[in-house]
Amino acid sequence: MRTARIRDLGIKIGELDAGPVNSITDVEGVTVGQVTLSDGDKQTGVTAIVPHQDSLFEEKLIASSHVINGFGKTMGTIQLNELGSLETPIVLTNTLSIGTAAEAVIDYMLERHPQIGRTTGTVNPVIGECNDMILNDIRAQPVKNEHVRQALNEASKDVKEGSVGAGTGMVCYSLKGGVGTSSRVIHLPHGTYTVGVLVITNFGKLSDLSISGHPIGKKLSQKIKAHETPDKGSVMIIVACDLPVSQRQLNRILKRSVTGLSRTGSIISNGSGDIAIGFSTAAKIPHEPDGELLSISTIHEEEIDHAFRAAGEAVEEAVLNSLTAADSVTGRDGNYLPTLMELLHTYQLNLSPN
Amino acid sequence: MRTARIRDLGIKIGELDAGPVNSITDVEGVTVGQVTLSDGDKQTGVTAIVPHQDSLFEEKLIASSHVINGFGKTMGTIQLNELGSLETPIVLTNTLSIGTAAEAVIDYMLERHPQIGRTTGTVNPVIGECNDMILNDIRAQPVKNEHVRQALNEASKDVKEGSVGAGTGMVCYSLKGGVGTSSRVIHLPHGTYTVGVLVITNFGKLSDLSISGHPIGKKLSQKIKAHETPDKGSVMIIVACDLPVSQRQLNRILKRSVTGLSRTGSIISNGSGDIAIGFSTAAKIPHEPDGELLSISTIHEEEIDHAFRAAGEAVEEAVLNSLTAADSVTGRDGNYLPTLMELLHTYQLNLSPN
Amino acid sequence: MRTARIRDLGIKIGELDAGPVNSITDVEGVTVGQVTLSDGDKQTGVTAIVPHQDSLFEEKLIASSHVINGFGKTMGTIQLNELGSLETPIVLTNTLSIGTAAEAVIDYMLERHPQIGRTTGTVNPVIGECNDMILNDIRAQPVKNEHVRQALNEASKDVKEGSVGAGTGMVCYSLKGGVGTSSRVIHLPHGTYTVGVLVITNFGKLSDLSISGHPIGKKLSQKIKAHETPDKGSVMIIVACDLPVSQRQLNRILKRSVTGLSRTGSIISNGSGDIAIGFSTAAKIPHEPDGELLSISTIHEEEIDHAFRAAGEAVEEAVLNSLTAADSVTGRDGNYLPTLMELLHTYQLNLSPN
Amino acid sequence: MRTARIRDLGIKIGELDAGPVNSITDVEGVTVGQVTLSDGDKQTGVTAIVPHQDSLFEEKLIASSHVINGFGKTMGTIQLNELGSLETPIVLTNTLSIGTAAEAVIDYMLERHPQIGRTTGTVNPVIGECNDMILNDIRAQPVKNEHVRQALNEASKDVKEGSVGAGTGMVCYSLKGGVGTSSRVIHLPHGTYTVGVLVITNFGKLSDLSISGHPIGKKLSQKIKAHETPDKGSVMIIVACDLPVSQRQLNRILKRSVTGLSRTGSIISNGSGDIAIGFSTAAKIPHEPDGELLSISTIHEEEIDHAFRAAGEAVEEAVLNSLTAADSVTGRDGNYLPTLMELLHTYQLNLSPN
Repeated sequence: MRTARIRDLGIKIGELDAGPVNSITDVEGVTVGQVTLSDGDKQTGVTAIVPHQDSLFEEKLIASSHVINGFGKTMGTIQLNELGSLETPIVLTNTLSIGTAAEAVIDYMLERHPQIGRTTGTVNPVIGECNDMILNDIRAQPVKNEHVRQALNEASKDVKEGSVGAGTGMVCYSLKGGVGTSSRVIHLPHGTYTVGVLVITNFGKLSDLSISGHPIGKKLSQKIKAHETPDKGSVMIIVACDLPVSQRQLNRILKRSVTGLSRTGSIISNGSGDIAIGFSTAAKIPHEPDGELLSISTIHEEEIDHAFRAAGEAVEEAVLNSLTAADSVTGRDGNYLPTLMELLHTYQLNLSPN
Repeated sequence: MRTARIRDLGIKIGELDAGPVNSITDVEGVTVGQVTLSDGDKQTGVTAIVPHQDSLFEEKLIASSHVINGFGKTMGTIQLNELGSLETPIVLTNTLSIGTAAEAVIDYMLERHPQIGRTTGTVNPVIGECNDMILNDIRAQPVKNEHVRQALNEASKDVKEGSVGAGTGMVCYSLKGGVGTSSRVIHLPHGTYTVGVLVITNFGKLSDLSISGHPIGKKLSQKIKAHETPDKGSVMIIVACDLPVSQRQLNRILKRSVTGLSRTGSIISNGSGDIAIGFSTAAKIPHEPDGELLSISTIHEEEIDHAFRAAGEAVEEAVLNSLTAADSVTGRDGNYLPTLMELLHTYQLNLSPN
Repeated sequence: MRTARIRDLGIKIGELDAGPVNSITDVEGVTVGQVTLSDGDKQTGVTAIVPHQDSLFEEKLIASSHVINGFGKTMGTIQLNELGSLETPIVLTNTLSIGTAAEAVIDYMLERHPQIGRTTGTVNPVIGECNDMILNDIRAQPVKNEHVRQALNEASKDVKEGSVGAGTGMVCYSLKGGVGTSSRVIHLPHGTYTVGVLVITNFGKLSDLSISGHPIGKKLSQKIKAHETPDKGSVMIIVACDLPVSQRQLNRILKRSVTGLSRTGSIISNGSGDIAIGFSTAAKIPHEPDGELLSISTIHEEEIDHAFRAAGEAVEEAVLNSLTAADSVTGRDGNYLPTLMELLHTYQLNLSPN
Repeated sequence: MRTARIRDLGIKIGELDAGPVNSITDVEGVTVGQVTLSDGDKQTGVTAIVPHQDSLFEEKLIASSHVINGFGKTMGTIQLNELGSLETPIVLTNTLSIGTAAEAVIDYMLERHPQIGRTTGTVNPVIGECNDMILNDIRAQPVKNEHVRQALNEASKDVKEGSVGAGTGMVCYSLKGGVGTSSRVIHLPHGTYTVGVLVITNFGKLSDLSISGHPIGKKLSQKIKAHETPDKGSVMIIVACDLPVSQRQLNRILKRSVTGLSRTGSIISNGSGDIAIGFSTAAKIPHEPDGELLSISTIHEEEIDHAFRAAGEAVEEAVLNSLTAADSVTGRDGNYLPTLMELLHTYQLNLSPN
């Protein structure tokens, strides 16, 4: 069965239009780099989100994070939330490689910024993770410094979905999950803006999966015996936008990602470290003050519902894309995770409700 | 068209069983009292939740609150969260009557506890609210001290739903909303426990309404012109349980109420003050120390998913009950809100997807 | 013994200069109104802070709150924090009168704004409190609607300190406490700004009191038997400024109020509801959007230490002013609280360390 | 000038008694291991706190964290706070070595627990940091995996203070800072308990330093020109106790650490990542449920003030110990940081106020 994106299967999520490529990279300046390590017991990788193409350390972005469920090891959010700004790319990988990823981002930043640790302070790497232990020999820690560097260096506008990058070994709703992305365009009186989302999906049990209201997971779970591992999963949600917002407003937008998750069936289980990290490219905050006040444009609070809806829809669609775009993977100890597309084909089911 | 509860219409929400009466009062000790003020421009009321039948001030309950969206005026949660305990009934009413409700609860507590303000400290009333201004002349502030007292005094196991109590004037998904309740039973190795939910629904726009995956709101919104007021709504969610939990665990359970909300279609709009308050009846915390350590039983964290699922399902079903149980109301300035049941009848639609 | 302000006694707190009158009203636009109810068992009152002199509902201010210790009943902070704005005056009174104060502020706002509850939504009153039960017959609830209205209507630039307004019956470090105020001026490259603080002090035990490093409380506690009531107190801290800040930055400033408290000796005891609420007058946020983006000026984060220092110093000095400015009060059941000045005179102690 | 502990200099902090060795290791089961890297431009190290001597992964401790100021890169607190438990030792090092430290702790845990990533989930390393760039060539990242392992393996009851371990290159109040520790004993009706604190001090400017109310920093700053670097510092505060507490109560205790910091003069500056992490050894939480409820003993809330006072006093004394115990260090580029003891000797000042 061929992989696809959910809307190519005739399923339209929500009411807002997607951006040109329906990807987080519809937000101008945002690129994504991925390194896939797929070889026998090794099924893991790195996904790096580069928020803009100039020096992020010199021109920080307004950023925030929101913990939906904190059973996770994400790094860098304490400073992100305190200062309201992001100064490095965001790197996603498997749980036991966060230390390695942090080291690599620090090295990457030190190379580019000789002033760090000398004439200015240090740098705050932002690293997210999910646990891919079902398919990946996570104890072997196959992700190395150079893989993170490669993901950062090869970032582009093109975002592969499914069993790639940090999503290589991920399991979602007892099916093969991984990387998904989507975007929404919103129209306000003062301009047109884009909200883009990238997710690494690694959560949920099959019987809970719902696609646009269709309880397909329940049907499938009556046909197959899903992988028996209890939900030790997670979902990392990266939200990019070019909307002029304060950190407080951005945080409110991030909080709406849970609506999209829930509509796919998530109960936000205990073991799932569900964490949203977001940034806006609308303003750039200089590393050092220049003696002038900063002037920050923001939307009026009464205009924010459009962004709330966009975030929820894009998260929902990105999660579904991670499922329909995934290739099946046989990994550690021969563990095999079927894909949604494969099961739909096998059981001659389709996704539309009628 | 007759009002009903959602499961009487053949719609089963989730996979867990409900308690005997599918109500927050399935949690032993919990009673609910309601006063309905429905007369022309006056369409409002009071709903009081009494967590147990002994002296709550002397035997406090472990409690917590969670702000889904803070555009609301709920009182008492600062102390609730700091001390992790509830010492008064919870009173729900309209937004502009929170001061009156607070006064009434204070009076109620002072009468019962002559030591307050003399040999012990003060008391922390917990008051929730939604804005019923579409149907109710909220500026007239018709809720008086005696209405709150009456609701407290008449609390019982029987919970009316729909256009009653604090739900009298509420509007949900552009339809008549109000009070809804539901419960779930969960089985753990050490016992069987109940999670009960009561909601006051006052949020959402018609086209977003989804019932068990069926986008009925979209269909209806193509047929009728929904009430044009932008979403200034809210939802108050009261979660009761007899599960042995720490405050931290209870807070995690409260956070899952958003999954149920989302499955009915909510995008958690800006104007909606969505707030969850919960308590467990499993332990009673004495007002004064007695020289001994307290011994608190709690579930193991790995057992909490059952409660997460229960909370989400009960919130979802309670919201739907508030819609299907509601009688239509003509209120302030002749504003009329149709009920879901009435529209389903008019347009010969049913709720099942096929 | 005459009352005084702490700096008139030769004690200089911190290193920054105070504003012209060393008061919260040094921040342009801010006024304070107080009503004192002092008669036998009735020793309480109201203190109202009016943040600017135009319509606060139409032109909201960026605002935030910070809970140092949540054993308190402050109202209105959920919405304040979510939306980051303040739309009513802040009213402080005794604990059991918060309902009454909320009602009064709602009435005050409804009178001025006929659109509330009709063509626009509702209004979020912000009410703070401390427990004055030692000196005041708090159960009698002597504060009435008209007292709150009077405080609001009579607000001016002149701020009385000590045993007045909401501070009438308060007890601080086992001495007579009450209202205190102070301000600091900070110089940044782009302008000169003022941070003003008003406190209601009702916390601490005598032996902990430290004045500019001098452990005067310990000395006094060896001489007198302090009032035996355990610390059921609180401190309300209102921080006003004209500094251009985001809500996030303002919140960071509020968090520094604890440094000033601590330097006077507070251990932030369990029973003390210590809460800071702050606003900046630098930007005015319109109630309704006008189709344009808002433009908010903010300082650079690297400039914020001046405000951190200012907030800590002004809180410290305001607390001390509340003590040195207080008149002794004989209240409920003949309870008498000595003043710091009186004890210094009796025991021939002075405040300077040498 | 010889190094010393502050109480050996005749300065008594607070009113509670210290434990037998006035150290975090007064809490039974707690050990500390330190590796010092001091050689020319390399002035850094590792300090590891081992909370108990059995398998922490199998028998977790109730734990919490509190961000005083979030300009820091501490890892592991998201999960710590969500689950309320600690399952690894806490490792402290310099900012740019957090990735390395995380890797090392992961390796350490994987070796001891073959089930991680196989039959159970992953592990959450808790890593704290301060920026020692003034004295240490932090860009060279001299801390290696083996140094972290060594610190973990050599942990003992004996805690060196000053310029050792993670404190080797730290600067506090413009003087040589580093590691400090202290403890307090509290007596409750049901038992005697110990609160122990370990700090890594790297914050503050000289003129703010206050020792037991004595503004010694101001005096010294008039005599010497302090190191001109703006405050880019931090303080890591580890609080251990054997008090039976819930996570909520433990968090309240952690919040009081700021009182101790403030009394030494801190204004909690922007650049200082001030973070408290705490645990209680009173209960052990099994990794897996066993079918029974957990039974957790906790103090009554009204008994918590003793712990609040203990935490504040122990933090204050630990900070001062870090100063008086420090040896002077000449580090990167010949940067030299004087010690407090050396300056007191040079200028013939003593610490007592008179």
